[in-house]
Amino acid sequence: MTDFFAGIPKIAYEGPDSDNDYAFRHYNPDEEVFGKRLEDHLRFAVAYWHSFAWEGGDPFGGQTFLRPWFGDTMEAAKLKADAAFEMFAILGQPFFCFHDADVRPKGETFAENTSRLREMTDYFQGKMEQTGTRLLWGTANLFSHRRYMAGAATNPDPDVFAFAAATVKTCIDATQQLGGQNYVLWGGREGYETLLNTDLTRERQQAGRFLSMAVDYAKKIGFEGTILIEPKPQEPTKHQYDYDVATVYSFLTEFGLQDEVKVNIEQGHAILAGHSFEHELALAASLGVLGSIDMNRNDYQSGWDTDQFPNSVPEVMLAYYEVLKAGGFTTGGTNFDAKLRRQSLDASDLILAHVGAMDVCAAGLKAAARMLEDGKLEDARTARYAGWTSERGDVLDQDLETIAADVEQNDINPQPHSGRQEALENLVNRYL
Amino acid sequence: MTDFFAGIPKIAYEGPDSDNDYAFRHYNPDEEVFGKRLEDHLRFAVAYWHSFAWEGGDPFGGQTFLRPWFGDTMEAAKLKADAAFEMFAILGQPFFCFHDADVRPKGETFAENTSRLREMTDYFQGKMEQTGTRLLWGTANLFSHRRYMAGAATNPDPDVFAFAAATVKTCIDATQQLGGQNYVLWGGREGYETLLNTDLTRERQQAGRFLSMAVDYAKKIGFEGTILIEPKPQEPTKHQYDYDVATVYSFLTEFGLQDEVKVNIEQGHAILAGHSFEHELALAASLGVLGSIDMNRNDYQSGWDTDQFPNSVPEVMLAYYEVLKAGGFTTGGTNFDAKLRRQSLDASDLILAHVGAMDVCAAGLKAAARMLEDGKLEDARTARYAGWTSERGDVLDQDLETIAADVEQNDINPQPHSGRQEALENLVNRYL
Amino acid sequence: MTDFFAGIPKIAYEGPDSDNDYAFRHYNPDEEVFGKRLEDHLRFAVAYWHSFAWEGGDPFGGQTFLRPWFGDTMEAAKLKADAAFEMFAILGQPFFCFHDADVRPKGETFAENTSRLREMTDYFQGKMEQTGTRLLWGTANLFSHRRYMAGAATNPDPDVFAFAAATVKTCIDATQQLGGQNYVLWGGREGYETLLNTDLTRERQQAGRFLSMAVDYAKKIGFEGTILIEPKPQEPTKHQYDYDVATVYSFLTEFGLQDEVKVNIEQGHAILAGHSFEHELALAASLGVLGSIDMNRNDYQSGWDTDQFPNSVPEVMLAYYEVLKAGGFTTGGTNFDAKLRRQSLDASDLILAHVGAMDVCAAGLKAAARMLEDGKLEDARTARYAGWTSERGDVLDQDLETIAADVEQNDINPQPHSGRQEALENLVNRYL
Amino acid sequence: MTDFFAGIPKIAYEGPDSDNDYAFRHYNPDEEVFGKRLEDHLRFAVAYWHSFAWEGGDPFGGQTFLRPWFGDTMEAAKLKADAAFEMFAILGQPFFCFHDADVRPKGETFAENTSRLREMTDYFQGKMEQTGTRLLWGTANLFSHRRYMAGAATNPDPDVFAFAAATVKTCIDATQQLGGQNYVLWGGREGYETLLNTDLTRERQQAGRFLSMAVDYAKKIGFEGTILIEPKPQEPTKHQYDYDVATVYSFLTEFGLQDEVKVNIEQGHAILAGHSFEHELALAASLGVLGSIDMNRNDYQSGWDTDQFPNSVPEVMLAYYEVLKAGGFTTGGTNFDAKLRRQSLDASDLILAHVGAMDVCAAGLKAAARMLEDGKLEDARTARYAGWTSERGDVLDQDLETIAADVEQNDINPQPHSGRQEALENLVNRYL
Repeated sequence: MTDFFAGIPKIAYEGPDSDNDYAFRHYNPDEEVFGKRLEDHLRFAVAYWHSFAWEGGDPFGGQTFLRPWFGDTMEAAKLKADAAFEMFAILGQPFFCFHDADVRPKGETFAENTSRLREMTDYFQGKMEQTGTRLLWGTANLFSHRRYMAGAATNPDPDVFAFAAATVKTCIDATQQLGGQNYVLWGGREGYETLLNTDLTRERQQAGRFLSMAVDYAKKIGFEGTILIEPKPQEPTKHQYDYDVATVYSFLTEFGLQDEVKVNIEQGHAILAGHSFEHELALAASLGVLGSIDMNRNDYQSGWDTDQFPNSVPEVMLAYYEVLKAGGFTTGGTNFDAKLRRQSLDASDLILAHVGAMDVCAAGLKAAARMLEDGKLEDARTARYAGWTSERGDVLDQDLETIAADVEQNDINPQPHSGRQEALENLVNRYL
Repeated sequence: MTDFFAGIPKIAYEGPDSDNDYAFRHYNPDEEVFGKRLEDHLRFAVAYWHSFAWEGGDPFGGQTFLRPWFGDTMEAAKLKADAAFEMFAILGQPFFCFHDADVRPKGETFAENTSRLREMTDYFQGKMEQTGTRLLWGTANLFSHRRYMAGAATNPDPDVFAFAAATVKTCIDATQQLGGQNYVLWGGREGYETLLNTDLTRERQQAGRFLSMAVDYAKKIGFEGTILIEPKPQEPTKHQYDYDVATVYSFLTEFGLQDEVKVNIEQGHAILAGHSFEHELALAASLGVLGSIDMNRNDYQSGWDTDQFPNSVPEVMLAYYEVLKAGGFTTGGTNFDAKLRRQSLDASDLILAHVGAMDVCAAGLKAAARMLEDGKLEDARTARYAGWTSERGDVLDQDLETIAADVEQNDINPQPHSGRQEALENLVNRYL
Repeated sequence: MTDFFAGIPKIAYEGPDSDNDYAFRHYNPDEEVFGKRLEDHLRFAVAYWHSFAWEGGDPFGGQTFLRPWFGDTMEAAKLKADAAFEMFAILGQPFFCFHDADVRPKGETFAENTSRLREMTDYFQGKMEQTGTRLLWGTANLFSHRRYMAGAATNPDPDVFAFAAATVKTCIDATQQLGGQNYVLWGGREGYETLLNTDLTRERQQAGRFLSMAVDYAKKIGFEGTILIEPKPQEPTKHQYDYDVATVYSFLTEFGLQDEVKVNIEQGHAILAGHSFEHELALAASLGVLGSIDMNRNDYQSGWDTDQFPNSVPEVMLAYYEVLKAGGFTTGGTNFDAKLRRQSLDASDLILAHVGAMDVCAAGLKAAARMLEDGKLEDARTARYAGWTSERGDVLDQDLETIAADVEQNDINPQPHSGRQEALENLVNRYL
Repeated sequence: MTDFFAGIPKIAYEGPDSDNDYAFRHYNPDEEVFGKRLEDHLRFAVAYWHSFAWEGGDPFGGQTFLRPWFGDTMEAAKLKADAAFEMFAILGQPFFCFHDADVRPKGETFAENTSRLREMTDYFQGKMEQTGTRLLWGTANLFSHRRYMAGAATNPDPDVFAFAAATVKTCIDATQQLGGQNYVLWGGREGYETLLNTDLTRERQQAGRFLSMAVDYAKKIGFEGTILIEPKPQEPTKHQYDYDVATVYSFLTEFGLQDEVKVNIEQGHAILAGHSFEHELALAASLGVLGSIDMNRNDYQSGWDTDQFPNSVPEVMLAYYEVLKAGGFTTGGTNFDAKLRRQSLDASDLILAHVGAMDVCAAGLKAAARMLEDGKLEDARTARYAGWTSERGDVLDQDLETIAADVEQNDINPQPHSGRQEALENLVNRYL
């Protein structure tokens, strides 16, 4: 045992009236919602990178966190893993996620990276078997190292493409070994800083080919999880190719991958792209590519990625409403791709941030389920479109001339009907 | 002759040193660029709606413009047309564009709308034959009338779909009669205010069907122009389905229309979607759907659509660079979807706004042509990607295992190279 | 009685479990909080302009609302007032607010405006005496008429300044006659579209003089209410002089008015200025100028003023927390400067929007009161700054040399402490 | 000599037609504008931090630059200084600026920081005497070290206040020793992340006292330069107290410092605050506090501080127009607080970025001077306000009653006049 979390108890459900900071008020893993345990609905995952690898820096200041496991050795990497699994035991969430670069020290060569990753994968495997914590997804960090500054798959240098592709192979291997339920690709550097030096057509082709290779390899080795793309509009690059769900879907169809790949949608990225989170979820569900979510919010008034833990039940409720309407998660889950504020230095901050977030999500999902079960919102929606399920809906099968003749002859002159937005917003508030 | 523009001379090219407000300094229609006249490159169009129908209102104030042609009669509509063609004669631009609602008074019924539109189409036809001014595109206003408040094609009421479809038929007819080179659809209300009352899947299907109907009808009547969709992310709706070029392309492929429809890209809309104008142009060109442009800029710091006349040569230059690289316009052109500031009350403001905009565009296109001809920028781009045209580019044909083995065995460890962005920005400034 | 609200019952408090759309769940006017009735804490006001004068237009579409009282006659104006007071009776809120232009038809001359305003003031006075509804504030509309397009107080034309000043006199008179508790100035056109044609120094002087005149006149006639300035950063103008609370305070001190004038802070305007609502409230309270609030939220992702009814209890709670910490309202109150969505056509929409908003505010204020009473948040804040109330706080009385010598000699090397933001956010969520 | 800039020639003026990347096209230091040398107008300064201390990191990736002087030793610090002065010799700009943390390795104690700063100050002094490069301003880095994570002057811990105050003393001393013409305070951490843990009133008082101490000390030691505050709205903190020029001015008057302190305005910070750069300059000039400028632009579409080198002549022109109208710089100058893009790895990038920026500024200032000299823009402005210099301007000396009586009796009914914005924008483009 490390002593990093010394004195912090395992978090248990104590109900809404508890006065204990170290308790869940809303997240009771065994509570049933629509006949499924809350834990199995939410499928919470801790993000290894922010919780254990991030040092608290920002563009104007350096490290604020002092963690006993910071350092570039395998010994430190294992200490980090020990602390991580201690936190998983405290929180009791079922999953975690990681990049290769989070879990092993940076090597001098690809071979060294690979052997270190394998050693840590084995180490993780042992811990996972002991504790039962599972892997929601694995991924490769193809954005932090300077070799990727101009892109990984979309780099002007084929050797960088190769290095990235080789790295993805090792990360799919690790994910497969650990029984990961998904494999995620986030193209942090797959975009451009300026069109002046960019061959957009070529780079998009490279990205398509790269994704196809990953899909093919996963199939070949019998990976049964889902391949996920994570959209983001910008940051770190000025423009990222995986801008939002619609853009990713367009890309998938262009390369014939729309049945092979789904999306991992992040609340903060949705906001940066000018969308609501629920828009991105609803669109992905409509297109059949809703995979998993990163449930970390952005500050609406800060123009960069703030990756905050969720703390707004009304917002989270609307997101889970879309997830529930789409039938809930299959391989996906709720990952907190969230970092502490850099002033939150203490072990207790790390625990309480997750406790609060898990509670907010549980409260939100339960409110969403109440609303879905009650059916008033869906009834209102159905009523609004009732004309389309009447025989008048046949207009869709006609052509412009027929329609125009009909409109003219019958003097069709439709009157608008109230959209009732405020009444529906009142209704939503009742389930909170 | 009306006397609205009394005293304002026909605008002629006088060269950069002219001290005359009513002269072109850069736009010499007959100047040749890459063997084509400047007029034929730029293909300027005046937007009838902003220049002749807009009254100067904003959300906090009403009409400021007092035009002799304001009014709801056919007489006023013809006076408006007279004034418009007088302005076209003053400016000498080759094209104009209009919505049905700009040119005819609003009728009580569809039949009345249609007959009025036909009468005005004939009136326009006469003027066009006299003056030689041509129609760049026609379009239907499916967003101002209250019947469209919840969408036209995407309305919950099939009767509104029908009214809209019938209206589009009449507008395609008018466009065809006037020899219009394109027909544009902008879905100002094709989106939603809130997901709470919206069936996103159904609405997107309706939009797809609607567009297919328009394409089919245009073909049937032998329309030889291009059908264009104009992307915009939001405003008037909270979320528009035609968000940006990538989203529209995704939509076109979903409905099998990617070879039938192109995009009309507006600088201001690109900015509202979080993109640069040149990004949208480059992406559309890459996807083969670059159709036409609305060359009106948005204020970067106002979050609504300001539709300003262009006045920045450096910005316009980068846009035309993408147009020229894509081979220039075919049926498309440069439409000023731009409105005067509401304090710019005078006839002289209307003329000078266009004069300035035409000059800015001419200067921008000529600078872009110089840059393209000089070739330094393209040479730098080619050099940056040279690795991909070497045999190393074969990596794209390999699979992950082969690549990983190669990277490991040969210890591939690529070093990054400067992106030279500042040097390229300096280079661009040299052509201004 | 008009029949506009026919069939809509008077809204009563029925408690959180009510299933009745037309009931309050949280707003029980007589409930006591800190020994004061909820009604007296919240001091709700209906905004006459949005609820009764706004027609549902937006920049891309015209009127959607069809109200029996729309029209330019005194008869229509009285019918409008009748309907308004019927709504006040249904809602039971204690206050309303109006501009001159909301309540009387536009006259041809200043004299006609004035006589019409006087007639309507008398009409209001009668209704107020009958019903007990009171006036929270009056104000002049100095932004809609085209004469004000380039500013009212800050217009380049002294005659416009004079017309505006004369109008303010008549509105202060009306406010005084009706026992208004405040008089508000919102400078919608007091700003500029472009610096190119603006004399910023002169215009700011004009604005200062104008405000001084209003203060002097109010004093002279014995007005006992508060004069309020309403900050907004932009829209309708590109830049408004009353940008935010800090800017207004700077302006007030420049003209010696900081003890005479307070601020009316709007949630939506705070957001447009890049601030949180609670920031603006806290700053105003700290500077001693917190007057009243407009409790209408902006959409964070729409860059224009959306003036939505509040529907987020967590946001509203943080706002009332600042109000309660500052001692609560004196002459100020909670005005809903909020408009229906333009698709919300029905009388029921108008009622339900207010019902929902009043409930959200009541729930928020009660949560804020619980948090303040519990004291945990304030205790944490006090503990964080404890060093400053120790003798170490004397460092503020020293000079740089003394301090530097002390730091060097005593090797002062402070260690940072956790800011505990996530723990405090969890705490806040407990009171909801 | 280091060999970092090997092969790069000293930059000379070669005129607009030069084809040499390493030449000025517009910046001829000896060219006279309004009787003053261009060098003396522009007063260019290089920012030591971005050019020599920044390593190329961003929130998603680490160091990209490999500089021979990176390291934590005094030897490395001197090598860095050697390279810096070599670059100054290549560029020929007259000034530079630095923070203490840029020039000396971080010490373990305050005493060590101080002795290292002194040693480096002596080292700089020698180089400055040899080369003639002068110090535009010095400043203290009170934001990067973790001790400042919750503020320097505004920290909850008085010991941090003391450490910061002591550090400012050493930096003012260094600035004085080197003949610095200004001393700047940028409060990067003087703000808050959340109001929940913040005592805004107390923190603002601390900031006021801190600034007063700095002013007093500078006076005491006979510092003849200007003390400058640099406004910024947010980043790194969620909210900075020095939001913009109006806020800083309000703060200065609150603490009686408006005659002691001026502002250093950055283009990028103006944009982040929702203002145009020229607005901030015009307002500061109007209030008598225009001090100096940081001429680095922000990307309008990236919500974080991008600190790009200026490359838009039209934008820079409008900024210098305000500077020239205000009489030009006295102690202030044009600092490039600008960083290379992190992909711009090479020494040539560092040089060319400055060459391009200096040329853009020179072209902009010369265009501004032409416009000012020509007088057409100022004539138009004067004409617009002519009414106020007529006897009608006396309305400012009247009171509301007098004015109202006059308006009524004389039926004053002013008609609006065109603001001519487009015509003026055309005019501005003529000087480019």
